[in-house]
Amino acid sequence: MLKEQHSIIQLLREHRGKAVHVIDPYKVPVADAVEKARAVASLGSPILLVGSTDYTAFDDQMALYLAELQQASDLKLLLHFPPRKGHGAPISEFADGILGHCVLNSVDEYFVHQSLVETQHRLNNSQADRVPELLPVAAFTVGPDAKTFKAVGSQSITDSPTELSCYTRLIKEREFDIVYIYSRHGQVSLEVCEFFRANIYPEQILFVSGGVRSQEQVSRYLEAGADYVVFGTALETEDWKSTLTRFTNEALAVKSR
Amino acid sequence: MLKEQHSIIQLLREHRGKAVHVIDPYKVPVADAVEKARAVASLGSPILLVGSTDYTAFDDQMALYLAELQQASDLKLLLHFPPRKGHGAPISEFADGILGHCVLNSVDEYFVHQSLVETQHRLNNSQADRVPELLPVAAFTVGPDAKTFKAVGSQSITDSPTELSCYTRLIKEREFDIVYIYSRHGQVSLEVCEFFRANIYPEQILFVSGGVRSQEQVSRYLEAGADYVVFGTALETEDWKSTLTRFTNEALAVKSR
Repeated sequence: MLKEQHSIIQLLREHRGKAVHVIDPYKVPVADAVEKARAVASLGSPILLVGSTDYTAFDDQMALYLAELQQASDLKLLLHFPPRKGHGAPISEFADGILGHCVLNSVDEYFVHQSLVETQHRLNNSQADRVPELLPVAAFTVGPDAKTFKAVGSQSITDSPTELSCYTRLIKEREFDIVYIYSRHGQVSLEVCEFFRANIYPEQILFVSGGVRSQEQVSRYLEAGADYVVFGTALETEDWKSTLTRFTNEALAVKSR
Repeated sequence: MLKEQHSIIQLLREHRGKAVHVIDPYKVPVADAVEKARAVASLGSPILLVGSTDYTAFDDQMALYLAELQQASDLKLLLHFPPRKGHGAPISEFADGILGHCVLNSVDEYFVHQSLVETQHRLNNSQADRVPELLPVAAFTVGPDAKTFKAVGSQSITDSPTELSCYTRLIKEREFDIVYIYSRHGQVSLEVCEFFRANIYPEQILFVSGGVRSQEQVSRYLEAGADYVVFGTALETEDWKSTLTRFTNEALAVKSR
């Protein structure tokens, strides 16, 4: 089968300025995930992220989950899991893309680049008919985050312009397709978002994630230069439908201004 | 004429662990420079730096100066001047090498890399029989330094490990031959020196410069991993000979331990 080159990156470049949902398949039952996938399609984003910092028995537990999710909507499924030594990031033929996280300031050299090589190697050797696209991602965390540190050695970035400049230089030199900034317990500042946008190439896609609870926040990040604003736990409640309706209505209101 | 490849870099790798003098040709009369060159040869370093942040009419004023200095001793003359837009760093057939400074955290993109390209271009087009070797240098400043900022947009590095890690990653990825850390009004800390040494490739050569007044300081930097410790203004006094004698005697004492 002929593979389309960089189709997901092109899709992401063409649909900038959207809210994106991330589903944790180890927390959200597949029936709920399917329902959410159909619902978030109304936000206009072409993708759905599926990810979790923790994961066990990925191949056994995720195949059916992802297969069902893939059938549920036209959204492209992008896996968003931390790589592990000797394996790289988990892969699945039922995903459309893999976020290949490179933690540029990791205390462990493996997560800076070698993990991406391992993931690519596994994809190259995959026996599946259909192989997801690997998207190189420069990944950063903001604020204390023991969990991500334990998983990939990520250190919080600061707001020092010289430090941020050095990251954006690396991002440009390595020509990453995607930059992903995440705050587990806080929020990415608008200033950091603006700095990255101003100092990476226009074609490089900027994701901001963490603590996003309202469309107003989404709008502020988009105005600060983010291409995609990720929300996850905002929908991990009983009344996620009303939350999503609010997101959608507000997004439509913003669009019609 | 056949050019030796990387001869100066090899020389520098073979003679690590030395104090190095830098002469400002716009301050030091050529007769004094010649005398100093002969004197510092006793310190065991294979090179003499010639440099100044400010310079005017370089080609007219420096040719004779450098020609005389080159005759004075066996030391290899390395030019150590900031590049300028449209020209790169100044070059001379009477120099053996050119430090091609790349200011990785410059606020002006030109000084990050383009200046090196310009310098190389001028060397390639030189009509001289003898062309100096261009040595790519990752250059950093420590502490407030309005003069260097004005010349090349350099910002002070901090002691943030994430920031320093990012610099050393760039240094490794770009495979710089030399790393040069300079403090105009203060001193490079031993911690910063140790960090760079621990996080760049062993074959990359580390210069530390600024506020060096004694052989004891030289020894501390060498123990902290510097390959060459640069002193300049320490000899810009009337009694520079006694200062140099002190340096030399102390160096011999250290060597004989």
